[in-house]
Amino acid sequence: MDSNRPLILISNDDGVEAPGLYHLIDCVKDYGDIIAVAPAAPHSGMSSAITVNAPLRIKAISEEEGVKVYSVSGTPVDCVKLGLHALVPRRPDIMLSGVNHGSNSGNSVIYSGTMGAALEACMAGIPAIGYSLLHHSLAADFSETTPYIRRITQAVMAGGLEKGVCLNVNFPSRCAIEGMKVVKAAKGFWTEEYQEYTDPHGKPFYWLTGRFHNLEPDNPDTDEYWLNRHYASVVPVRADQTAADCLPALTALLG
Amino acid sequence: MDSNRPLILISNDDGVEAPGLYHLIDCVKDYGDIIAVAPAAPHSGMSSAITVNAPLRIKAISEEEGVKVYSVSGTPVDCVKLGLHALVPRRPDIMLSGVNHGSNSGNSVIYSGTMGAALEACMAGIPAIGYSLLHHSLAADFSETTPYIRRITQAVMAGGLEKGVCLNVNFPSRCAIEGMKVVKAAKGFWTEEYQEYTDPHGKPFYWLTGRFHNLEPDNPDTDEYWLNRHYASVVPVRADQTAADCLPALTALLG
Repeated sequence: MDSNRPLILISNDDGVEAPGLYHLIDCVKDYGDIIAVAPAAPHSGMSSAITVNAPLRIKAISEEEGVKVYSVSGTPVDCVKLGLHALVPRRPDIMLSGVNHGSNSGNSVIYSGTMGAALEACMAGIPAIGYSLLHHSLAADFSETTPYIRRITQAVMAGGLEKGVCLNVNFPSRCAIEGMKVVKAAKGFWTEEYQEYTDPHGKPFYWLTGRFHNLEPDNPDTDEYWLNRHYASVVPVRADQTAADCLPALTALLG
Repeated sequence: MDSNRPLILISNDDGVEAPGLYHLIDCVKDYGDIIAVAPAAPHSGMSSAITVNAPLRIKAISEEEGVKVYSVSGTPVDCVKLGLHALVPRRPDIMLSGVNHGSNSGNSVIYSGTMGAALEACMAGIPAIGYSLLHHSLAADFSETTPYIRRITQAVMAGGLEKGVCLNVNFPSRCAIEGMKVVKAAKGFWTEEYQEYTDPHGKPFYWLTGRFHNLEPDNPDTDEYWLNRHYASVVPVRADQTAADCLPALTALLG
Protein backbone atom coordinates (compact mmCIF):
# COMPACT_ATOMS: atom_id res chain seq x y z
CA MET A 1 0.00 0.00 0.00
CA ASP A 2 1.16 3.49 -0.89
CA SER A 3 1.73 5.52 2.25
CA ASN A 4 1.18 8.74 0.33
CA ARG A 5 -2.42 7.90 -0.54
CA PRO A 6 -5.29 8.44 1.88
CA LEU A 7 -6.22 5.30 3.82
CA ILE A 8 -9.89 4.29 3.86
CA LEU A 9 -11.12 1.82 6.49
CA ILE A 10 -14.33 0.03 5.49
CA SER A 11 -16.65 -2.26 7.44
CA ASN A 12 -20.28 -3.37 7.40
CA ASP A 13 -22.74 -5.50 9.36
CA ASP A 14 -23.95 -7.85 6.64
CA GLY A 15 -20.66 -9.72 6.66
CA VAL A 16 -17.65 -10.12 4.42
CA GLU A 17 -19.63 -11.79 1.63
CA ALA A 18 -22.26 -9.07 1.25
CA PRO A 19 -22.43 -7.40 -2.19
CA GLY A 20 -22.98 -4.00 -0.55
CA LEU A 21 -19.46 -4.14 0.91
CA TYR A 22 -17.88 -4.64 -2.51
CA HIS A 23 -20.07 -1.97 -4.05
CA LEU A 24 -18.78 0.50 -1.44
CA ILE A 25 -15.17 -0.55 -2.13
CA ASP A 26 -15.71 -0.08 -5.87
CA CYS A 27 -17.23 3.37 -5.32
CA VAL A 28 -14.22 4.80 -3.50
CA LYS A 29 -11.13 2.76 -4.37
CA ASP A 30 -9.72 5.51 -6.58
CA TYR A 31 -9.78 7.84 -3.54
CA GLY A 32 -7.15 5.91 -1.59
CA ASP A 33 -5.88 2.60 -0.29
CA ILE A 34 -8.57 0.45 1.27
CA ILE A 35 -8.53 -1.85 4.28
CA ALA A 36 -11.90 -3.59 4.61
CA VAL A 37 -12.59 -5.47 7.85
CA ALA A 38 -16.02 -7.10 7.94
CA PRO A 39 -17.74 -9.63 10.20
CA ALA A 40 -17.15 -13.25 9.15
CA ALA A 41 -20.92 -13.80 9.42
CA PRO A 42 -23.90 -11.44 9.03
CA HIS A 43 -24.50 -9.26 12.11
CA SER A 44 -27.57 -7.15 11.42
CA GLY A 45 -29.11 -5.50 14.46
CA MET A 46 -25.86 -5.70 16.43
CA SER A 47 -25.82 -2.00 17.35
CA SER A 48 -22.54 -1.14 19.15
CA ALA A 49 -22.18 -4.65 20.62
CA ILE A 50 -18.66 -5.83 21.47
CA THR A 51 -17.35 -9.34 22.07
CA VAL A 52 -16.25 -9.39 25.70
CA ASN A 53 -16.17 -13.05 26.65
CA ALA A 54 -14.76 -14.82 23.60
CA PRO A 55 -11.58 -14.69 21.51
CA LEU A 56 -11.52 -13.04 18.10
CA ARG A 57 -9.81 -14.27 14.98
CA ILE A 58 -8.75 -12.39 11.86
CA LYS A 59 -8.81 -14.00 8.41
CA ALA A 60 -7.26 -12.52 5.27
CA ILE A 61 -9.88 -12.79 2.52
CA SER A 62 -8.43 -11.11 -0.56
CA GLU A 63 -5.77 -8.69 -1.69
CA GLU A 64 -5.45 -6.74 -4.89
CA GLU A 65 -3.78 -3.48 -5.84
CA GLY A 66 -4.68 -1.02 -3.07
CA VAL A 67 -7.51 -3.13 -1.57
CA LYS A 68 -7.12 -5.62 1.28
CA VAL A 69 -10.14 -7.45 2.70
CA TYR A 70 -10.22 -9.23 6.07
CA SER A 71 -12.88 -10.88 8.17
CA VAL A 72 -13.16 -10.85 11.96
CA SER A 73 -15.11 -13.45 13.93
CA GLY A 74 -17.15 -10.83 15.79
CA THR A 75 -19.42 -7.82 15.58
CA PRO A 76 -19.11 -4.70 13.39
CA VAL A 77 -17.58 -2.77 16.32
CA ASP A 78 -15.11 -5.61 16.90
CA CYS A 79 -14.09 -5.25 13.23
CA VAL A 80 -13.34 -1.54 13.65
CA LYS A 81 -11.56 -1.92 17.00
CA LEU A 82 -9.46 -4.89 15.91
CA GLY A 83 -8.88 -3.40 12.46
CA LEU A 84 -7.47 -0.25 14.05
CA HIS A 85 -5.44 -2.30 16.53
CA ALA A 86 -3.96 -4.95 14.24
CA LEU A 87 -4.61 -4.34 10.53
CA VAL A 88 -4.19 -0.72 9.43
CA PRO A 89 -0.68 0.25 8.30
CA ARG A 90 -1.35 3.87 9.34
CA ARG A 91 -4.17 5.92 10.80
CA PRO A 92 -7.17 5.90 8.41
CA ASP A 93 -8.24 9.23 6.95
CA ILE A 94 -11.86 8.16 6.81
CA MET A 95 -14.03 5.19 7.77
CA LEU A 96 -17.00 4.01 5.69
CA SER A 97 -19.61 1.44 6.72
CA GLY A 98 -21.97 -0.50 4.45
CA VAL A 99 -23.50 -0.32 2.02
CA ASN A 100 -26.09 -1.89 4.28
CA HIS A 101 -28.74 -4.13 2.77
CA GLY A 102 -31.72 -2.47 4.48
CA SER A 103 -32.84 0.79 6.04
CA ASN A 104 -31.20 2.57 8.95
CA SER A 105 -33.51 5.58 8.93
CA GLY A 106 -35.76 6.79 11.75
CA ASN A 107 -34.82 5.28 15.11
CA SER A 108 -33.26 2.19 13.47
CA VAL A 109 -29.90 3.87 13.90
CA ILE A 110 -29.82 2.72 17.54
CA TYR A 111 -30.03 -0.98 16.52
CA SER A 112 -27.81 -0.69 13.46
CA GLY A 113 -24.52 -2.55 13.27
CA THR A 114 -23.66 -0.43 10.23
CA MET A 115 -23.92 2.68 12.37
CA GLY A 116 -22.31 0.90 15.35
CA ALA A 117 -19.18 0.52 13.22
CA ALA A 118 -19.32 4.14 12.06
CA LEU A 119 -19.82 5.41 15.63
CA GLU A 120 -16.83 3.37 16.80
CA ALA A 121 -14.55 5.00 14.23
CA CYS A 122 -16.06 8.37 15.10
CA MET A 123 -15.18 7.87 18.79
CA ALA A 124 -11.64 7.00 17.69
CA GLY A 125 -11.49 10.44 16.05
CA ILE A 126 -11.85 9.25 12.44
CA PRO A 127 -14.46 10.90 10.18
CA ALA A 128 -17.04 8.17 9.54
CA ILE A 129 -20.06 7.60 7.31
CA GLY A 130 -22.60 4.77 7.34
CA TYR A 131 -24.36 4.04 4.03
CA SER A 132 -27.60 2.05 3.77
CA LEU A 133 -29.99 1.13 0.96
CA LEU A 134 -33.70 0.63 1.68
CA HIS A 135 -33.72 -2.85 0.19
CA HIS A 136 -32.98 -6.04 2.16
CA SER A 137 -32.20 -8.32 -0.74
CA LEU A 138 -28.68 -9.55 -1.34
CA ALA A 139 -29.47 -8.98 -5.02
CA ALA A 140 -30.35 -5.30 -4.47
CA ASP A 141 -29.29 -2.89 -7.21
CA PHE A 142 -26.82 -0.40 -5.72
CA SER A 143 -25.93 1.38 -8.98
CA GLU A 144 -27.97 4.53 -8.31
CA THR A 145 -26.06 5.15 -5.08
CA THR A 146 -22.62 5.46 -6.68
CA PRO A 147 -22.52 9.21 -7.47
CA TYR A 148 -23.91 10.07 -4.00
CA ILE A 149 -21.42 7.85 -2.17
CA ARG A 150 -18.58 9.38 -4.16
CA ARG A 151 -19.77 12.93 -3.60
CA ILE A 152 -20.41 12.58 0.15
CA THR A 153 -17.20 10.64 0.79
CA GLN A 154 -15.14 13.16 -1.15
CA ALA A 155 -16.72 16.12 0.66
CA VAL A 156 -16.00 14.58 4.07
CA MET A 157 -12.43 13.65 3.08
CA ALA A 158 -11.88 17.26 2.04
CA GLY A 159 -13.80 19.07 4.77
CA GLY A 160 -13.93 16.70 7.72
CA LEU A 161 -16.76 16.37 10.23
CA GLU A 162 -17.34 17.90 13.63
CA LYS A 163 -15.52 15.88 16.31
CA GLY A 164 -17.78 13.22 17.82
CA VAL A 165 -20.28 13.34 14.95
CA CYS A 166 -20.63 10.85 12.08
CA LEU A 167 -23.09 10.55 9.20
CA ASN A 168 -26.00 8.19 8.64
CA VAL A 169 -26.80 8.13 4.92
CA ASN A 170 -29.84 6.24 3.59
CA PHE A 171 -30.77 5.68 -0.05
CA PRO A 172 -34.23 4.95 -1.48
CA SER A 173 -34.50 1.79 -3.54
CA ARG A 174 -36.02 0.68 -6.84
CA CYS A 175 -36.12 4.17 -8.30
CA ALA A 176 -34.02 7.01 -9.62
CA ILE A 177 -32.65 9.05 -6.69
CA GLU A 178 -34.03 12.59 -6.98
CA GLY A 179 -31.39 14.30 -4.84
CA MET A 180 -30.04 14.47 -1.29
CA LYS A 181 -31.30 16.13 1.90
CA VAL A 182 -29.48 16.86 5.18
CA VAL A 183 -32.12 16.18 7.84
CA LYS A 184 -32.96 14.78 11.30
CA ALA A 185 -33.98 11.21 12.07
CA ALA A 186 -37.78 10.90 12.04
CA LYS A 187 -39.27 10.27 15.47
CA GLY A 188 -41.28 7.08 15.78
CA PHE A 189 -41.51 3.62 17.27
CA TRP A 190 -41.96 0.01 16.21
CA THR A 191 -45.31 -1.78 16.32
CA GLU A 192 -46.48 -5.40 15.94
CA GLU A 193 -43.02 -6.49 16.97
CA TYR A 194 -43.30 -10.28 17.26
CA GLN A 195 -44.77 -13.11 15.29
CA GLU A 196 -45.80 -15.98 17.57
CA TYR A 197 -45.33 -19.66 16.74
CA THR A 198 -45.75 -23.07 18.35
CA ASP A 199 -42.96 -25.60 17.89
CA PRO A 200 -43.65 -29.31 17.07
CA HIS A 201 -43.55 -30.05 20.82
CA GLY A 202 -46.30 -27.55 21.59
CA LYS A 203 -44.01 -24.89 23.05
CA PRO A 204 -44.29 -21.24 22.00
CA PHE A 205 -41.52 -19.21 20.42
CA TYR A 206 -41.31 -15.69 19.05
CA TRP A 207 -39.60 -14.05 16.07
CA LEU A 208 -38.88 -10.34 15.78
CA THR A 209 -40.75 -8.49 13.04
CA GLY A 210 -42.63 -5.19 13.17
CA ARG A 211 -42.82 -1.97 11.24
CA PHE A 212 -41.75 1.58 11.97
CA HIS A 213 -44.59 3.90 12.97
CA ASN A 214 -43.53 7.42 11.93
CA LEU A 215 -44.78 10.05 14.39
CA GLU A 216 -44.01 12.91 12.03
CA PRO A 217 -44.80 11.73 8.47
CA ASP A 218 -45.41 15.27 7.21
CA ASN A 219 -42.22 16.82 8.63
CA PRO A 220 -39.86 17.80 5.79
CA ASP A 221 -36.97 18.10 8.27
CA THR A 222 -36.82 14.29 8.62
CA ASP A 223 -35.18 11.39 6.78
CA GLU A 224 -38.34 9.32 6.34
CA TYR A 225 -40.12 12.21 4.62
CA TRP A 226 -37.49 12.50 1.89
CA LEU A 227 -36.76 8.77 1.52
CA ASN A 228 -40.46 8.34 0.77
CA ARG A 229 -40.04 10.97 -1.95
CA HIS A 230 -37.03 9.15 -3.49
CA TYR A 231 -34.32 11.37 -2.04
CA ALA A 232 -31.20 10.22 -0.19
CA SER A 233 -31.10 11.35 3.47
CA VAL A 234 -28.02 12.44 5.42
CA VAL A 235 -28.40 12.58 9.23
CA PRO A 236 -25.56 13.77 11.50
CA VAL A 237 -25.29 11.39 14.47
CA ARG A 238 -23.53 12.21 17.75
CA ALA A 239 -21.73 9.46 19.66
CA ASP A 240 -22.11 11.15 23.07
CA GLN A 241 -25.74 10.68 24.08
CA THR A 242 -25.64 12.95 27.13
CA ALA A 243 -28.78 15.13 27.15
CA ALA A 244 -26.96 18.18 28.53
CA ASP A 245 -30.05 20.39 28.21
CA CYS A 246 -31.82 18.17 30.78
CA LEU A 247 -29.26 18.70 33.54
CA PRO A 248 -31.02 21.62 35.34
CA ALA A 249 -34.46 19.96 35.42
CA LEU A 250 -32.94 16.67 36.51
CA THR A 251 -30.91 18.34 39.26
CA ALA A 252 -34.14 19.91 40.51
CA LEU A 253 -35.98 16.57 40.39
CA LEU A 254 -33.31 14.66 42.32
CA GLY A 255 -32.04 17.51 44.50
CA MET B 1 -50.74 -8.92 40.55
CA ASP B 2 -52.66 -5.96 41.90
CA SER B 3 -53.75 -3.73 39.03
CA ASN B 4 -53.97 -0.74 41.37
CA ARG B 5 -50.26 -0.81 42.18
CA PRO B 6 -47.61 0.72 39.90
CA LEU B 7 -46.01 -1.80 37.57
CA ILE B 8 -42.20 -1.92 37.46
CA LEU B 9 -40.46 -3.65 34.55
CA ILE B 10 -36.90 -4.75 35.35
CA SER B 11 -34.15 -6.13 33.15
CA ASN B 12 -30.35 -6.34 33.09
CA ASP B 13 -27.49 -7.54 30.90
CA ASP B 14 -25.69 -9.87 33.31
CA GLY B 15 -28.46 -12.45 33.00
CA VAL B 16 -31.25 -13.85 35.10
CA GLU B 17 -28.90 -15.36 37.68
CA ALA B 18 -26.96 -12.16 38.45
CA PRO B 19 -27.13 -10.99 42.09
CA GLY B 20 -27.45 -7.37 40.92
CA LEU B 21 -30.85 -8.14 39.40
CA TYR B 22 -32.20 -9.46 42.70
CA HIS B 23 -30.68 -6.56 44.62
CA LEU B 24 -32.58 -4.17 42.34
CA ILE B 25 -35.81 -6.11 42.82
CA ASP B 26 -35.35 -6.03 46.61
CA CYS B 27 -34.69 -2.28 46.54
CA VAL B 28 -37.99 -1.37 44.88
CA LYS B 29 -40.50 -4.18 45.44
CA ASP B 30 -42.48 -2.18 47.97
CA TYR B 31 -43.03 0.50 45.26
CA GLY B 32 -45.15 -1.73 43.01
CA ASP B 33 -45.62 -5.04 41.28
CA ILE B 34 -42.52 -6.28 39.49
CA ILE B 35 -42.06 -8.09 36.20
CA ALA B 36 -38.37 -8.91 35.70
CA VAL B 37 -37.32 -10.15 32.25
CA ALA B 38 -33.61 -10.87 31.98
CA PRO B 39 -31.37 -12.60 29.43
CA ALA B 40 -31.07 -16.37 29.98
CA ALA B 41 -27.26 -15.96 29.70
CA PRO B 42 -24.93 -13.03 30.46
CA HIS B 43 -24.92 -10.37 27.70
CA SER B 44 -22.44 -7.71 28.72
CA GLY B 45 -21.40 -5.33 25.96
CA MET B 46 -24.53 -6.04 23.92
CA SER B 47 -25.47 -2.37 23.49
CA SER B 48 -28.88 -2.09 21.77
CA ALA B 49 -28.43 -5.35 19.86
CA ILE B 50 -31.57 -7.22 18.80
CA THR B 51 -32.03 -10.82 17.71
CA VAL B 52 -33.14 -10.64 14.10
CA ASN B 53 -32.36 -14.07 12.65
CA ALA B 54 -33.26 -16.52 15.42
CA PRO B 55 -36.35 -17.42 17.46
CA LEU B 56 -36.74 -16.29 21.06
CA ARG B 57 -38.05 -18.30 23.97
CA ILE B 58 -39.48 -17.18 27.29
CA LYS B 59 -38.97 -19.18 30.48
CA ALA B 60 -40.78 -18.53 33.78
CA ILE B 61 -38.13 -18.53 36.49
CA SER B 62 -39.88 -17.65 39.75
CA GLU B 63 -43.03 -16.13 41.16
CA GLU B 64 -43.74 -14.76 44.58
CA GLU B 65 -46.13 -12.14 45.93
CA GLY B 66 -45.88 -9.18 43.53
CA VAL B 67 -42.66 -10.34 41.82
CA LYS B 68 -42.49 -12.45 38.65
CA VAL B 69 -39.14 -13.30 37.05
CA TYR B 70 -38.70 -14.54 33.47
CA SER B 71 -35.75 -15.22 31.20
CA VAL B 72 -35.57 -14.63 27.45
CA SER B 73 -33.08 -16.40 25.18
CA GLY B 74 -31.76 -13.15 23.73
CA THR B 75 -30.26 -9.73 24.37
CA PRO B 76 -31.26 -7.11 26.94
CA VAL B 77 -33.25 -5.21 24.29
CA ASP B 78 -35.00 -8.46 23.29
CA CYS B 79 -36.01 -8.83 26.95
CA VAL B 80 -37.63 -5.40 27.03
CA LYS B 81 -39.31 -5.75 23.63
CA LEU B 82 -40.64 -9.24 24.28
CA GLY B 83 -41.50 -8.42 27.89
CA LEU B 84 -43.65 -5.50 26.71
CA HIS B 85 -45.17 -7.63 23.95
CA ALA B 86 -45.94 -10.83 25.84
CA LEU B 87 -45.40 -10.59 29.61
CA VAL B 88 -46.64 -7.37 31.17
CA PRO B 89 -50.26 -7.39 32.38
CA ARG B 90 -50.48 -3.62 31.84
CA ARG B 91 -48.26 -0.77 30.70
CA PRO B 92 -45.31 -0.39 33.11
CA ASP B 93 -45.04 2.86 35.04
CA ILE B 94 -41.25 2.66 35.09
CA MET B 95 -38.45 0.45 33.76
CA LEU B 96 -35.26 -0.25 35.72
CA SER B 97 -32.14 -1.97 34.39
CA GLY B 98 -29.34 -3.54 36.44
CA VAL B 99 -27.85 -3.38 38.88
CA ASN B 100 -24.99 -3.95 36.46
CA HIS B 101 -21.86 -5.68 37.72
CA GLY B 102 -19.39 -3.15 36.29
CA SER B 103 -19.11 0.47 35.19
CA ASN B 104 -21.17 2.19 32.51
CA SER B 105 -19.66 5.63 32.98
CA GLY B 106 -17.80 7.71 30.38
CA ASN B 107 -18.41 6.47 26.84
CA SER B 108 -19.17 2.91 28.04
CA VAL B 109 -22.85 3.78 27.76
CA ILE B 110 -22.71 3.13 24.01
CA TYR B 111 -21.61 -0.51 24.53
CA SER B 112 -23.77 -1.16 27.56
CA GLY B 113 -26.51 -3.77 27.46
CA THR B 114 -27.81 -2.34 30.73
CA MET B 115 -28.33 1.01 29.01
CA GLY B 116 -29.53 -0.69 25.81
CA ALA B 117 -32.44 -2.09 27.82
CA ALA B 118 -33.14 1.28 29.45
CA LEU B 119 -33.03 3.10 26.10
CA GLU B 120 -35.46 0.58 24.62
CA ALA B 121 -38.02 1.26 27.35
CA CYS B 122 -37.36 4.98 26.95
CA MET B 123 -38.16 4.78 23.22
CA ALA B 124 -41.38 2.96 24.13
CA GLY B 125 -42.33 6.01 26.22
CA ILE B 126 -41.62 4.47 29.65
CA PRO B 127 -39.43 6.38 32.15
CA ALA B 128 -36.28 4.28 32.47
CA ILE B 129 -33.17 4.14 34.65
CA GLY B 130 -30.02 2.03 34.27
CA TYR B 131 -28.09 1.31 37.49
CA SER B 132 -24.46 0.13 37.53
CA LEU B 133 -21.87 -0.56 40.23
CA LEU B 134 -18.16 -0.06 39.51
CA HIS B 135 -17.29 -3.60 40.52
CA HIS B 136 -17.29 -6.57 38.13
CA SER B 137 -17.45 -9.36 40.69
CA LEU B 138 -20.58 -11.46 41.05
CA ALA B 139 -19.87 -11.22 44.79
CA ALA B 140 -19.90 -7.40 44.74
CA ASP B 141 -21.45 -5.69 47.77
CA PHE B 142 -24.49 -3.69 46.60
CA SER B 143 -25.72 -2.62 50.04
CA GLU B 144 -24.49 0.98 49.84
CA THR B 145 -26.55 1.56 46.68
CA THR B 146 -29.95 0.83 48.25
CA PRO B 147 -30.91 4.32 49.54
CA TYR B 148 -29.82 5.92 46.24
CA ILE B 149 -31.73 3.45 44.09
CA ARG B 150 -34.83 3.97 46.21
CA ARG B 151 -34.54 7.75 46.15
CA ILE B 152 -33.88 8.07 42.40
CA THR B 153 -36.55 5.52 41.46
CA GLN B 154 -39.13 7.22 43.68
CA ALA B 155 -38.32 10.68 42.30
CA VAL B 156 -38.72 9.47 38.72
CA MET B 157 -41.95 7.59 39.52
CA ALA B 158 -43.32 10.82 41.02
CA GLY B 159 -41.94 13.38 38.59
CA GLY B 160 -41.29 11.49 35.35
CA LEU B 161 -38.51 12.19 32.87
CA GLU B 162 -38.39 14.24 29.70
CA LYS B 163 -39.70 12.24 26.76
CA GLY B 164 -36.90 10.42 24.95
CA VAL B 165 -34.45 10.75 27.85
CA CYS B 166 -33.47 8.06 30.36
CA LEU B 167 -30.95 7.97 33.21
CA ASN B 168 -27.55 6.31 33.48
CA VAL B 169 -26.70 5.94 37.20
CA ASN B 170 -23.28 4.67 38.31
CA PHE B 171 -22.19 3.86 41.85
CA PRO B 172 -18.63 3.80 43.21
CA SER B 173 -17.59 0.55 44.85
CA ARG B 174 -15.78 -0.60 47.99
CA CYS B 175 -16.49 2.60 49.90
CA ALA B 176 -19.18 4.63 51.55
CA ILE B 177 -21.05 6.67 48.92
CA GLU B 178 -20.54 10.38 49.68
CA GLY B 179 -23.55 11.68 47.76
CA MET B 180 -24.96 12.00 44.25
CA LYS B 181 -24.18 14.31 41.31
CA VAL B 182 -26.19 15.03 38.14
CA VAL B 183 -23.51 15.35 35.45
CA LYS B 184 -22.43 14.67 31.86
CA ALA B 185 -20.60 11.58 30.62
CA ALA B 186 -16.82 12.17 30.68
CA LYS B 187 -15.30 12.38 27.21
CA GLY B 188 -12.58 9.84 26.51
CA PHE B 189 -11.56 6.77 24.57
CA TRP B 190 -10.25 3.25 25.17
CA THR B 191 -6.57 2.33 24.85
CA GLU B 192 -4.58 -0.92 24.79
CA GLU B 193 -7.69 -2.66 23.58
CA TYR B 194 -6.52 -6.19 22.78
CA GLN B 195 -4.40 -8.84 24.38
CA GLU B 196 -2.75 -11.05 21.75
CA TYR B 197 -2.32 -14.82 22.07
CA THR B 198 -1.13 -17.77 20.03
CA ASP B 199 -3.22 -20.93 20.11
CA PRO B 200 -1.67 -24.45 20.43
CA HIS B 201 -1.65 -24.68 16.62
CA GLY B 202 0.40 -21.52 16.23
CA LYS B 203 -2.46 -19.31 15.10
CA PRO B 204 -3.03 -15.86 16.64
CA PHE B 205 -6.17 -14.79 18.42
CA TYR B 206 -7.21 -11.63 20.23
CA TRP B 207 -9.19 -10.86 23.38
CA LEU B 208 -10.78 -7.50 24.16
CA THR B 209 -9.37 -5.66 27.14
CA GLY B 210 -8.32 -2.00 27.49
CA ARG B 211 -8.86 0.88 29.84
CA PHE B 212 -10.75 4.15 29.57
CA HIS B 213 -8.57 7.18 28.92
CA ASN B 214 -10.41 10.18 30.40
CA LEU B 215 -9.86 13.33 28.34
CA GLU B 216 -11.25 15.60 31.05
CA PRO B 217 -10.15 14.17 34.43
CA ASP B 218 -10.38 17.55 36.19
CA ASN B 219 -13.86 18.47 34.92
CA PRO B 220 -16.35 18.48 37.83
CA ASP B 221 -19.27 18.41 35.36
CA THR B 222 -18.51 14.75 34.50
CA ASP B 223 -19.39 11.32 35.90
CA GLU B 224 -15.81 10.04 36.13
CA TYR B 225 -14.75 13.01 38.23
CA TRP B 226 -17.33 12.28 40.93
CA LEU B 227 -17.14 8.49 40.80
CA ASN B 228 -13.42 8.85 41.56
CA ARG B 229 -14.41 10.91 44.60
CA HIS B 230 -16.88 8.24 45.82
CA TYR B 231 -20.07 9.93 44.63
CA ALA B 232 -22.85 8.32 42.61
CA SER B 233 -23.27 9.87 39.12
CA VAL B 234 -26.55 10.45 37.28
CA VAL B 235 -26.29 11.20 33.53
CA PRO B 236 -29.37 11.97 31.39
CA VAL B 237 -29.11 10.00 28.12
CA ARG B 238 -31.08 10.81 24.96
CA ALA B 239 -32.21 8.00 22.66
CA ASP B 240 -32.29 10.17 19.53
CA GLN B 241 -28.65 10.71 18.54
CA THR B 242 -29.35 13.29 15.80
CA ALA B 243 -26.82 16.11 16.13
CA ALA B 244 -29.32 18.80 15.13
CA ASP B 245 -26.85 21.61 15.80
CA CYS B 246 -24.65 20.25 12.99
CA LEU B 247 -27.30 20.53 10.27
CA PRO B 248 -26.31 23.99 8.91
CA ALA B 249 -22.58 23.22 8.66
CA LEU B 250 -23.29 19.83 7.12
CA THR B 251 -25.69 21.33 4.60
CA ALA B 252 -22.95 23.77 3.62
CA LEU B 253 -20.37 20.97 3.32
CA LEU B 254 -22.55 18.77 1.11
CA GLY B 255 -24.50 21.49 -0.70
